[in-house]
Amino acid sequence: MRIDDNFYMKLAIDEAWKYQLLTYPNPAVGCVVVNNGEPLAIEAHKSAGESHAEVNALKAAYLKKNPNSPLKAISDPFKIHEFLKENHNGFFRDCTVYVTLEPCAHIGKTPSCATLLCELKPSKVIIAHEDMNKEASGGAQRLKEAQIEVSIGCMKKEAYELLYPFIKWCEGNFTFFKMAQTLNGTIDGGRISSNQAQAYVHTLRDKLDLLAIGGNTVRTDQPTLDARYVAGRAPNVLIYSRNKVFDKKIPLFYIPNREVIISDNIEDIKQYKLVMIEGGYSLLNELQDVVDYFIMIVSPTMKSGFNGVEGLDINFDIIHENYIGSDKIIYLKKKTSF
Amino acid sequence: MRIDDNFYMKLAIDEAWKYQLLTYPNPAVGCVVVNNGEPLAIEAHKSAGESHAEVNALKAAYLKKNPNSPLKAISDPFKIHEFLKENHNGFFRDCTVYVTLEPCAHIGKTPSCATLLCELKPSKVIIAHEDMNKEASGGAQRLKEAQIEVSIGCMKKEAYELLYPFIKWCEGNFTFFKMAQTLNGTIDGGRISSNQAQAYVHTLRDKLDLLAIGGNTVRTDQPTLDARYVAGRAPNVLIYSRNKVFDKKIPLFYIPNREVIISDNIEDIKQYKLVMIEGGYSLLNELQDVVDYFIMIVSPTMKSGFNGVEGLDINFDIIHENYIGSDKIIYLKKKTSF
Ligand SMILES: [Zn+2]
Ligand SMILES: [Zn+2]
Repeated sequence: MRIDDNFYMKLAIDEAWKYQLLTYPNPAVGCVVVNNGEPLAIEAHKSAGESHAEVNALKAAYLKKNPNSPLKAISDPFKIHEFLKENHNGFFRDCTVYVTLEPCAHIGKTPSCATLLCELKPSKVIIAHEDMNKEASGGAQRLKEAQIEVSIGCMKKEAYELLYPFIKWCEGNFTFFKMAQTLNGTIDGGRISSNQAQAYVHTLRDKLDLLAIGGNTVRTDQPTLDARYVAGRAPNVLIYSRNKVFDKKIPLFYIPNREVIISDNIEDIKQYKLVMIEGGYSLLNELQDVVDYFIMIVSPTMKSGFNGVEGLDINFDIIHENYIGSDKIIYLKKKTSF
Repeated sequence: MRIDDNFYMKLAIDEAWKYQLLTYPNPAVGCVVVNNGEPLAIEAHKSAGESHAEVNALKAAYLKKNPNSPLKAISDPFKIHEFLKENHNGFFRDCTVYVTLEPCAHIGKTPSCATLLCELKPSKVIIAHEDMNKEASGGAQRLKEAQIEVSIGCMKKEAYELLYPFIKWCEGNFTFFKMAQTLNGTIDGGRISSNQAQAYVHTLRDKLDLLAIGGNTVRTDQPTLDARYVAGRAPNVLIYSRNKVFDKKIPLFYIPNREVIISDNIEDIKQYKLVMIEGGYSLLNELQDVVDYFIMIVSPTMKSGFNGVEGLDINFDIIHENYIGSDKIIYLKKKTSF
């Protein structure tokens, strides 16, 4: 196996994927700090309002060699900046910093990563994908002006796939379809996913601008569609249905401060920035062209049951995958050409 | 993410998995050489008769820092040993060597890795799993006698899963079930897997002692069951069938030097060291208790079709997974307790 820039960047990309969608409205970003070939830190941005990936990685790298530093107790991004600025003492001089997205150049909820890097002066910053957000961009230029060697484009394609949800919601809407199934594709027969996978779905629901679901599922399963496993906010719901009549005793209608829309106009979904559609094969088949990502949670079981609809025929690319406990999570995109 | 011994050992384990079963009758083994935290090499044993994982990794590590060394042109394991012994000049002094299996202590088709390590004197050798093969074991003891620090047990559970096929075939038989399917579990409707996945299956067939297949598949698909994509040896075939009557014009009966057994006695399978069963859900369900591993090749498509049999209900652990081109390969083991 080659141990080169791609190897280190891949570590950053994989780390960032662990927090995909959870950083909303921020992008998922990963960062690796390497000192003479030694990886000192592999970190990611975890949630909006918390430290950026670069800050987490620079902090972890410093602590790897100074494990008893008071930095350990500091979690406020502004204070981490401050501490590193005052105490780095050339620590990062021989370091290469791999980051999946161009370091931000503007001060938002957290201070600018480009500014911090300019102060800490690693010998090189390798960036996978440039920032396309006007407000935050300009980071690479700032680094160059500080005499830091900068390169852009290492694993750019993989970084683009990581960044894709962010790009879409910045343009106005990112819609993903979530489905839970067994290894042999069955989705019926009671609860499929593990506790951890269910908690993950509730964590997603807590972030959403809209949760869309098919009318039949509402009628049959009578769901609540909240985020109680993580004590989170229940998202607004769009019931995708031609038939607008529902029994209002179904629990999802009872959630305080929740808007429920009943619509068969798919354009209504596109008004929201981050949308999850939960459903089965029938809804997936119907909505395949309005969905940006498909997220399959696969439980490692085989069970007899229902696994598709007449005429189902979709080709995907696997964008990424991971584990949630003993379940698999697979990120898919519909193939656009053959 | 923690960057510790487990991190480096995981690199060795994942590298070894790329050659799982392909090293038969040898175990799949991975090795990582780290110099002051810098990974210099991540290598594996690739095929019986070729260099062991340690030799590949020690060679790659040396070349990483001496890219123009004549070692580059040497591939014979004995000559790599010779070269490193004569030219290492303390190169490995500060290195830690991570290896998934205790280095071999006996000279077989290739020279002993323990002997080589004793000569090269890395500061530390970290072993995931001890060697249980009497003939090859004793490597750790030899290293200790050469004043090399040795530790055993880092990621032992993961290394055991990697080693498991080897352990089973050393005991007499390792049987795995191979199935190809879509994301939603359908297995009918013509060819499913990519060219690369088919070549992989042919590579496996070339290694087998026996290929088992159900009688119905033979009657319906009339397969050849050879290894032509890799110009390999067609394996002996056992047709698992109560009905012993077959049309002898079916191509599989025509392969020179192939033995074909027709049997409904599962004990006949257990007489062979490395056995692959190819089949669908019906055979899988019937033979689930005699199978050590299940290998699923999953093509990233969804298609309507057949995905199971009445009463199918099996729980698995996912042991490992990988890609073959754009297809997934998933290694499963039946769960033994709940
Ligand atoms: Zn930033
Ligand atoms: Zn060896």
